[in-house]
Amino acid sequence: MSLNIARFEYQGRVRWGVMRGSQITPVPGEFATTGDFIRGTSLAELAALEGNTLEQSAVKLLSPVTQNQQFVCQGANYRQHMIESGMDPDEKTYNMIFTKASSCIVAADSDVIKPRIVQFLDYEIELGLVLRKAIKGAVTITDKNLHEYVAGAVIVNDYSARDVQIPQMQFYKGKSFRTFGPVGPWLTLLDASSITALKNLQLKLTVNGEVRQQDSSANLVFGPAETLTELSTVQDFEAGDLLATGTPAGCALSIPSQFKQKIGALLPEKTKWDLFLKVQSQRKQYLRNGDLVEASIRSADGKIDLGVQRNRVVVEAL
Amino acid sequence: MSLNIARFEYQGRVRWGVMRGSQITPVPGEFATTGDFIRGTSLAELAALEGNTLEQSAVKLLSPVTQNQQFVCQGANYRQHMIESGMDPDEKTYNMIFTKASSCIVAADSDVIKPRIVQFLDYEIELGLVLRKAIKGAVTITDKNLHEYVAGAVIVNDYSARDVQIPQMQFYKGKSFRTFGPVGPWLTLLDASSITALKNLQLKLTVNGEVRQQDSSANLVFGPAETLTELSTVQDFEAGDLLATGTPAGCALSIPSQFKQKIGALLPEKTKWDLFLKVQSQRKQYLRNGDLVEASIRSADGKIDLGVQRNRVVVEAL
Repeated sequence: MSLNIARFEYQGRVRWGVMRGSQITPVPGEFATTGDFIRGTSLAELAALEGNTLEQSAVKLLSPVTQNQQFVCQGANYRQHMIESGMDPDEKTYNMIFTKASSCIVAADSDVIKPRIVQFLDYEIELGLVLRKAIKGAVTITDKNLHEYVAGAVIVNDYSARDVQIPQMQFYKGKSFRTFGPVGPWLTLLDASSITALKNLQLKLTVNGEVRQQDSSANLVFGPAETLTELSTVQDFEAGDLLATGTPAGCALSIPSQFKQKIGALLPEKTKWDLFLKVQSQRKQYLRNGDLVEASIRSADGKIDLGVQRNRVVVEAL
Repeated sequence: MSLNIARFEYQGRVRWGVMRGSQITPVPGEFATTGDFIRGTSLAELAALEGNTLEQSAVKLLSPVTQNQQFVCQGANYRQHMIESGMDPDEKTYNMIFTKASSCIVAADSDVIKPRIVQFLDYEIELGLVLRKAIKGAVTITDKNLHEYVAGAVIVNDYSARDVQIPQMQFYKGKSFRTFGPVGPWLTLLDASSITALKNLQLKLTVNGEVRQQDSSANLVFGPAETLTELSTVQDFEAGDLLATGTPAGCALSIPSQFKQKIGALLPEKTKWDLFLKVQSQRKQYLRNGDLVEASIRSADGKIDLGVQRNRVVVEAL
C-alpha cells in the first residue's frame, strides 16, 4: 500500500491531507514540521481516514518537507551519469555526500529564481527519501527493514549554479541559493509491501517539453539501504529529514573527458576555470529566463506516482 | 563590554549562566536552544544579573551551540594556510563554504572519537561566530553593523578524517563524524564596542603540549562581515547558527605543492590517492589514541577570552 500526502495552505492555515484523485481529506491535528507529521500519524490510520474533502485545485500545495529538516545529498550516483562524468561506476569506491541549505526548499511548482550573478543554471531530477525515524547511532539497514527507516519518497530538483559549484570545489554554496530545492508536489508514503518500488521508479525531466533526463532508479550505484547504513556511522538524523539520491545523465553541465581533465590540471588555475566556463557558455542546455522545467517520477505500472513538478525559471529582479 | 555565557547541566537540569571568575550565575528561564537563549536575553540584562552562584567546578559545561543550529564553515581562509595549501591568498577569488552535520557538535572538553575506519584524524582550531538574529534575504553587513548580526564568539575545533575528506572531494562526510565538532567551553557575547576584537584574536592549538597552530584572526582572508554579506544572498540563517571561519596553518595534513598536484593529476585516480595516503602515513602529526589537543582563543590583552578546549583522542570501541 502507498498513499500520497499533501501539505497545503487553505484559508490562511497550513494543514496536511490525504490525496485521493483530485480530492484532499484534511488530517486532524496540527503538525508544524514533517518530523511532527511522521511521528504523529501512521499509514494505516491515514489510509482509513474519512471526512470532508477539499478540491486539490482549491488549495495551495506546499513542500511536504519543511525547512527545518536536513537536506543531505548523494553525488554522481547513476551509472550513466558517472560514465558521462568520466568515472567508472564499477570502480567507484565511495559514496559522495554533500548538503544543500534547507532554506532552498520550496513547493514543487515554485518559480526558480536565477540569481543575477549566476551564469549557468542547471537542473537535476532526483528521487528524495524522507526518513521515518531518528537515527542516533550505527544501524544496519537492508532492503528488508528499509521501511522502518524510510517513510516515503518525493521528487527533488537539485538546481545548481554550475559556475559557482564546480570552480569552488565544494558544492554547498552553488546548490543552496533560495528556491534551488523544489520538493514534492506530495509525499508518497510507503510500507513494507510497497517500498520495493524505490528500486524501479522511472525518472523523467523535460525543459520546454524536450526530454533531457530519463532513467530508472534501478541504475542507482549506492542504494538507499547501504547509503543510510553508512551515514548512520557518521551522523544523526531525525524523522522527516531528506536524502536526495543523485541525478541521472542529461544535465546541461558538460564535464570534460578524463584526458581533458588531466590536461586542464596542468594549466594555471585561472586559465583552467576560464576554459571550463567558456566550454559551458557554448552549451545551449543551461536554463534561461522563462524556461519551463517539468519533472516526474512514477513506477511503470503507475501504482506509485510521486507527481509532477513544474518550475518556471525567472531571473532575479534588480 | 563582553560577557562569557555557559550552558551547563546541574542536578540533571540544563541551564544557562553568566560566568564571572569561577562562579556561574544561573539565568532565570528555560531556553531549549541557542537561538531561544539569544532571542530571549540581552547582553545588558545578563551583565546586570545578580543572584546565587554555582562553582564552575560543580557543573558540567555543555556546548553553548545546540545541535539544532546550522554549522556552516569556511575553508582555506588564513593567508599562511592558503600558502601552505599551494594557493595565493591575493589571487583567491572565492570564499569556500561547506557544512558539518550539526550532530557532531559536542562540549568543549569531550573525548574525540576516532572511528576505526579513519586513519588520518586531524585538528583545526577555528574562531566560531554565533548569529544574533535571523537572516532571510540579502543584507549588507559591515564592520559598523556587524554586532547587529553576530552575538558572540566561540572556539570550534573542526576535526577532520583526511582519508575520507580529501579523496572524496566533498568535505561534508569526513568532517561530520560524531564528536568532530567541539564548541566552547563558553559563548563570549560581544557588543558594538567589543566586536572589533574579532579582528585581532590569538588562536593557539597544542597536541600533547607541542604548539601546532598559532595565528591571529587579523590574517583571515574573508572576514566575518563580507562572508555574512555574501551568504545572505544565498541562504537563510536563524539566531544561534554557527559560522566557523577557517583554520590557520599547522594541521597534520600535508598538501602537495602545486607542481606535485599537477603531476598527480596525470596519474590514474586510484594511483593518485594511494600516493596521497602514503605521503600522509609518513606524517607523525596525525592524532593517535590518547593524544591531548588543547585549543585557546583570546585577545592579546586578555580582555576577550574564549577559554580553552581540551580533547582526548579515543579510538572507537569495537
